[in-house]
Amino acid sequence: MAVTRRQFLQQVGITGGAGVMFSTMGAMGMMPAAEAKTLPFRAPKKSDFTLTGKAHKNILILGGGIAGLTSAYHLQKAGYDVTILEANNRPGGRNWTVRKGDTITDLRGETQEATFTRDQYMNAGPARLPQNMVTLDYCRELGVPIEPFINQNADAYQYREGTTPISNRPIRHREAKADVYGYVSELLAKATDQGSLDTYLTQTDKDALIAFLRNFGALGNRVAGDPAGSFKYTGTDRRGFITTPGAGFEDGEPVPPFAMQDVLAAGLGNYFSFEFGWDQAMMMFQPVGGMDRIAYAFEEAVGKENIRYEAEVTNIENTSTGVKVQYMSRGRHMREISADYAICTMPPQIVAKTPSNLPADIIAANAYATKSRSGKLGIEYNRRWWEEDERIYGGITNTNMDISNMWYPSSGFHGERGVVIGYYSSSANYGNLNHAGRVERALMQGAKIHGEKYKQDIKSTFSISWDLVKYQEAAWNSWPSRTNGHYGRLLEPAGNIYFAGDHLSHTIAWQHGAIESARLAITKLHERVLSR
Amino acid sequence: MAVTRRQFLQQVGITGGAGVMFSTMGAMGMMPAAEAKTLPFRAPKKSDFTLTGKAHKNILILGGGIAGLTSAYHLQKAGYDVTILEANNRPGGRNWTVRKGDTITDLRGETQEATFTRDQYMNAGPARLPQNMVTLDYCRELGVPIEPFINQNADAYQYREGTTPISNRPIRHREAKADVYGYVSELLAKATDQGSLDTYLTQTDKDALIAFLRNFGALGNRVAGDPAGSFKYTGTDRRGFITTPGAGFEDGEPVPPFAMQDVLAAGLGNYFSFEFGWDQAMMMFQPVGGMDRIAYAFEEAVGKENIRYEAEVTNIENTSTGVKVQYMSRGRHMREISADYAICTMPPQIVAKTPSNLPADIIAANAYATKSRSGKLGIEYNRRWWEEDERIYGGITNTNMDISNMWYPSSGFHGERGVVIGYYSSSANYGNLNHAGRVERALMQGAKIHGEKYKQDIKSTFSISWDLVKYQEAAWNSWPSRTNGHYGRLLEPAGNIYFAGDHLSHTIAWQHGAIESARLAITKLHERVLSR
Repeated sequence: MAVTRRQFLQQVGITGGAGVMFSTMGAMGMMPAAEAKTLPFRAPKKSDFTLTGKAHKNILILGGGIAGLTSAYHLQKAGYDVTILEANNRPGGRNWTVRKGDTITDLRGETQEATFTRDQYMNAGPARLPQNMVTLDYCRELGVPIEPFINQNADAYQYREGTTPISNRPIRHREAKADVYGYVSELLAKATDQGSLDTYLTQTDKDALIAFLRNFGALGNRVAGDPAGSFKYTGTDRRGFITTPGAGFEDGEPVPPFAMQDVLAAGLGNYFSFEFGWDQAMMMFQPVGGMDRIAYAFEEAVGKENIRYEAEVTNIENTSTGVKVQYMSRGRHMREISADYAICTMPPQIVAKTPSNLPADIIAANAYATKSRSGKLGIEYNRRWWEEDERIYGGITNTNMDISNMWYPSSGFHGERGVVIGYYSSSANYGNLNHAGRVERALMQGAKIHGEKYKQDIKSTFSISWDLVKYQEAAWNSWPSRTNGHYGRLLEPAGNIYFAGDHLSHTIAWQHGAIESARLAITKLHERVLSR
Repeated sequence: MAVTRRQFLQQVGITGGAGVMFSTMGAMGMMPAAEAKTLPFRAPKKSDFTLTGKAHKNILILGGGIAGLTSAYHLQKAGYDVTILEANNRPGGRNWTVRKGDTITDLRGETQEATFTRDQYMNAGPARLPQNMVTLDYCRELGVPIEPFINQNADAYQYREGTTPISNRPIRHREAKADVYGYVSELLAKATDQGSLDTYLTQTDKDALIAFLRNFGALGNRVAGDPAGSFKYTGTDRRGFITTPGAGFEDGEPVPPFAMQDVLAAGLGNYFSFEFGWDQAMMMFQPVGGMDRIAYAFEEAVGKENIRYEAEVTNIENTSTGVKVQYMSRGRHMREISADYAICTMPPQIVAKTPSNLPADIIAANAYATKSRSGKLGIEYNRRWWEEDERIYGGITNTNMDISNMWYPSSGFHGERGVVIGYYSSSANYGNLNHAGRVERALMQGAKIHGEKYKQDIKSTFSISWDLVKYQEAAWNSWPSRTNGHYGRLLEPAGNIYFAGDHLSHTIAWQHGAIESARLAITKLHERVLSR
């Protein structure tokens, strides 16, 4: 069932054309670098019908998350009649911005109501948009203003519990980088200079490498006849200052470096690669005012009248002429709706257990997906102590405690209040607790980094564990294997029903994956309609 | 004349107190890290007069740049009568945001008028605010909204002219980092594994180092009996993709790495350390709407009625009772103004050549400063091609061509237009050209990176070379030595005249330095007033 990329491009019926050729040439060094191309996508158009005389069709879309909204948006623009059934009372699915008055009752029966201040919010699901993902293009097209999301900040911390002399204390990322790069550079410069790498390096290479390392690591000089004393890293003002350089003779007192052995033992560099990741390197962005601005922009484009909220799908059927779906409306009324085709964007595990006449291999494929846990805690403070006391303006503090990552807000700088993400963690230690227990545990850990003020000036809190969210039951869904037939089966329709969602992409847990998957599904559907 | 930091603190008459003690303890690892402390500053207060019965004084401030505005702001809050004489028709000095209709006639007589679109601008002088500098505190205090300034972006480029196989082509910073870190890690892992560094590393150190390097460099496994084949860097998706991961079976095609020899020869890592710098590491910020929002907020706080614009100082005199200054008002009328004291924030070289009765050593000290050249070119485009075509949302492209650095705008994302800084360069090649020549040269270089579109869709341009700006004559002023008496002389008053400006700090060319210097000067002045 596995398909090569080339075959795949042919399958979707769109030739790569100039885009693919251009990219390939770029990779071969034949022309200036260009941005990576997303899968070629030609949106369905009204003229596809008017020029061919074909009739448009009714499309039912199950799930009003990003995949469902993208599908509806493009199909409707081409003249299709679309209806979205969405179980929640809002668009977006996991794209959920929690605001004052929002409530949730989780699958264990615990209810929370958000009491954030009116202008404050928490993106409970996706929160960051990389430059290289297609989601940004929809922000542009739909008119959703964006602003930087601060995914890294040299002045945020890392904190490692452990037994080394520099464990159990907050260390600014800038300090960690300066020391790690300093000692790594010192060691490599020494090895290079003493000829240990002559198998791999010419003298020209060695000269260039040492010149780079001296700058990169802020190293001292080579000292003739003193290998140990050569290329020493002895600290750098890149680490920051105890007293900041200022007026008159205040030239600043740099913070001294940690010892090399401690830096290595504490694993001070182990977080660095996160910041280089294809999907995590800065710059990143967020919609101004909350991630749900994307969902609501889609809603406005599709038309609220074409979305049925609080519509819980209870039965899915292929019929001889199309599809027929039953749903419970607003928890009270059973309804039925028919259409020519459907695009099902419901979470795969939920599809698998929803009554249907779907074939056994489709149900098995949906059931094969693996559910991931993950959750967040939002803590609104009445004082932006991270700015006022610690001069941290956004960014992430990373720790080996189970809060994992703490986010400082990327907007509202210098304001009166702000929502800190107290954890973004996959640890079951949080999902297993109730809200009060999560808050207590997270505050205890955060206070190790920020001190007792972390427990003070708290206006409100809200937590989510996506495995406990009705209609989701997982933070995201993955595949133990993509080559054993299950995954590939869902890329093809089951009768008149197509499947889409980030789980049917190679960027699981990103809105990009949901959008790309929707684009693939509607491309296939549209081709079929036109070929009839 | 050189003064130690401790003596200096005593000189300014303010004990460090808890702040200094805390910082020192932090450096000794005795408590959690805290932010670096700027010089302790106790703003003059009204109660200093009411409680002592001392009379406040009239203070004349020469120059309405950031040092002058800061001085006026604090002195006035304490009850002093302040008058600023500013040669330009606006506050801020080098803090100048060029907008539609702004004009400049440079010292060579060439006039430019800015024709940017109404909502577009160019920060001709300072443009970025680091988290660790005091300027941000004034944004908070004065109510100037801030937003991120994008000082680094993994998707911006570096471009090196040269003779290596990878010279003369734009390379994304993410590609450069992945390859440099990959090869550096591979080499160091090999040297470590083969025992070359056993003088410096225990087995525990080695294990920790190799574990770090494998993650940091995206390295392959150790291969028993094959040192050359061990810990190989063979590329990583951190470099980015030719085709982006997406729906179905599109798992993405990573851009392949460059060869190690080429990476070293091209100096691909030589720009990295810029991004770690104490004063350049992200996050950085800018005022929403232009850097001059700070200057205008100061103006509003000080009161426009206390600032005389278009007032060119022509004579400075200490008198037996205070100071007396003559100035040419609006180019037409000679005026004279007297006060008890003055704070002179004019550029030192201009002070040195302004008629005065200042003592010879003061004039010599001001003349001793070294003028630096630097300039910028703003290019307004009618299309944000850097976002639309290249997926670059802000940041800096660095090159060894003499444009040096090209900045993409940090705001207005997805808008219709934007101002690219075509160069921020100290090269005399730009200062020596007229505006048309600068534009032509910069476009030719920029087109090597971005292609012919760099010359298209241009709405307007504006350039500045600070050495040619009247009343400035330099981008900033430095000191060949700070220990030979000249610099220190200006930290003490000349009679009733004090000196301030970023040139009298250890953060030259930063507003932080101007502010800190002003704070030092007014502290000394206030102490003197209170001690009489």
